[in-house]
Amino acid sequence: MIKPDLSSQNALPTPALLLDEAKMMRNIARLAGRAECLGVSLRPHLKTAKSVEAARRLTGGTPGSITVSTLAEAEVFHDAGHTDILYAVGIAPQKLERVQALRRRGCDLTVILDSEAQAQAVTQAAVPALIEIDSDGHRGGLRSDDPALIQIGRILHTVGCLRGVMTHAGESYSVRGDAAHAEFAELERKAAVAAAEALRVAGLPCPVVSVGSTPTAHAARDLTGVTELRAGVYMFFDLVMAGIDVCTVDDIALSVLTTVIGHQPAKGWTMIDAGWMALSRDRGTAAQDVDQGYGLVCDENGHVLPDLIVSSANQEHGIVSLRPGADRPMPDLPVGTRLRVLPNHACATAAQHDRYNVLPVNGGPMQTWHRFGGW
Amino acid sequence: MIKPDLSSQNALPTPALLLDEAKMMRNIARLAGRAECLGVSLRPHLKTAKSVEAARRLTGGTPGSITVSTLAEAEVFHDAGHTDILYAVGIAPQKLERVQALRRRGCDLTVILDSEAQAQAVTQAAVPALIEIDSDGHRGGLRSDDPALIQIGRILHTVGCLRGVMTHAGESYSVRGDAAHAEFAELERKAAVAAAEALRVAGLPCPVVSVGSTPTAHAARDLTGVTELRAGVYMFFDLVMAGIDVCTVDDIALSVLTTVIGHQPAKGWTMIDAGWMALSRDRGTAAQDVDQGYGLVCDENGHVLPDLIVSSANQEHGIVSLRPGADRPMPDLPVGTRLRVLPNHACATAAQHDRYNVLPVNGGPMQTWHRFGGW
Repeated sequence: MIKPDLSSQNALPTPALLLDEAKMMRNIARLAGRAECLGVSLRPHLKTAKSVEAARRLTGGTPGSITVSTLAEAEVFHDAGHTDILYAVGIAPQKLERVQALRRRGCDLTVILDSEAQAQAVTQAAVPALIEIDSDGHRGGLRSDDPALIQIGRILHTVGCLRGVMTHAGESYSVRGDAAHAEFAELERKAAVAAAEALRVAGLPCPVVSVGSTPTAHAARDLTGVTELRAGVYMFFDLVMAGIDVCTVDDIALSVLTTVIGHQPAKGWTMIDAGWMALSRDRGTAAQDVDQGYGLVCDENGHVLPDLIVSSANQEHGIVSLRPGADRPMPDLPVGTRLRVLPNHACATAAQHDRYNVLPVNGGPMQTWHRFGGW
Repeated sequence: MIKPDLSSQNALPTPALLLDEAKMMRNIARLAGRAECLGVSLRPHLKTAKSVEAARRLTGGTPGSITVSTLAEAEVFHDAGHTDILYAVGIAPQKLERVQALRRRGCDLTVILDSEAQAQAVTQAAVPALIEIDSDGHRGGLRSDDPALIQIGRILHTVGCLRGVMTHAGESYSVRGDAAHAEFAELERKAAVAAAEALRVAGLPCPVVSVGSTPTAHAARDLTGVTELRAGVYMFFDLVMAGIDVCTVDDIALSVLTTVIGHQPAKGWTMIDAGWMALSRDRGTAAQDVDQGYGLVCDENGHVLPDLIVSSANQEHGIVSLRPGADRPMPDLPVGTRLRVLPNHACATAAQHDRYNVLPVNGGPMQTWHRFGGW
């Protein structure tokens, strides 16, 4: 293993977001291999990374098909050369002008919807759409046997705007283990394929059958009838994904570099300069088998310090302590010690930062990748 | 009441952060009046606003004494003319170079600390410091009877770096009502004044005795011995502060403008385009008497829609539903309807945005104030 260059890491003001490129490339390769094996194309979700440099690595070095969660992402990634983009949040009619402007600039941008009102607006704007299918009761979408599916399909098809169906099993995050995730993957597949079949039986086209979430994408056994797979957080992974066995803690490519700024020895507290502003308020592991607080603490090289978590967070203060019940002494961490904190939820933690400080795959000096936000 | 100009609000892409300047000015005036009456100077905390325009309004139209939570804030606000700045997060030795650079540029920047190691580093750097006092067991600081207080005071005083003491009763957020907050205000006062007296008895100077949190600043009955009061979130207020009766819901100056993007009628769900990316993951009301979910929903004019909350949030999706047990029908909110969401925690919600869309106090067209982040 090539050791990261700690001299450039040590020069970083803290808190700072670190990205281990080697781990990220390993995570990207793993899902690319699965998609190839399952015979579907991969449409990575860029909502986690929001970085042009990261996007390029996700799509094999050249711009490729991607998913986005905001029109700002669509605009930035189109400017960076990506021309096949799915905007995977139900379309608001007011946003169609921006969608049309992007399409006029040569971006093949597709939207999603699940109501007749949206279909009417999209048809008037002549924008291609996927119909959102609800495979697990998680959020939006129509059940695949809902008669509205065919009505919406007909509205869209009158002007050639019906491109297919999509679903996302967000509930797969709440179960643990490969077998449970495989069941959700099959729910996604069945719902999407059934909806596609219903449209086809009604004489409507359905070229795209799109499914995915990070847990289901890593567990699907068979994707017969599906054309594409979507996933996002897998490129970085996080403690939530490790907590449901989609990855190991060692796969987590993202961490927050922080500095020790104080102690309350009687309470077993070590204070760090990473609070929720740097870590996010996400407590996604709170309901899991192992609650990681606001993050799992590592030394400055990224080696986990067993049972040490960020147990509490204020805006710019984190309180580090041993996990309840841990049977070991608190490590000696003098003021000025540098630590890394692994995040509960990579999407939320990355969103608190405007750049990735990248430990490059070849072990050279640290690089900086810009990260954008907004809508 | 002058009605906000909805034409410019309607032109905003959603989600977007709205700031009602009239409510903000009312909140600012309220605490300024209290501080005057209590005979202390006010040192507002800019960690909530992170905006030069908001800072100017906090300090009476011209640059004044402020508190910050990051050195990035100190740098931006010093560039904007503020020269008396307290950096109120325990100093890491590695940050002293940046502190010194700011001081050389004419910024009277003070740091805080609670250990001998920090005091040694600060003394070497010749940077003035306040000693942090723990008044309520919330986070950092020394108890006012800790012998280390005098030792640290002596280290700092050898080179004239001892400027005083400061404390913050963060635990006051966890109790409700003016009487309970007044008790915490008295804890703050007693602890800070006792520490100042201990230093003076040891022959050390203690010109600054600084206390404050938004709940205690609004409840303190008497601040004898205290020289300055700090508070931050009061300029915007939020549901957490309303939930402990420091303000009313009508005082909340900040909201997130959002658009309805879908429905699941069988579940009573309305989907909006404000998820945790726009609202933050903060669930500060979860432990309060009234759990507001991820925020309380208002119409586009800011009138509360009773019992309607954001019950769940994904990255770019919010699920709006009636509060559990609410005995009223779900209002009709077609796709495209604009709503406002009042935040649990103004600091966290504002941090998800790079600008304030300001409804000006005089009712004119909307203004845009830049908001910065980072460290």
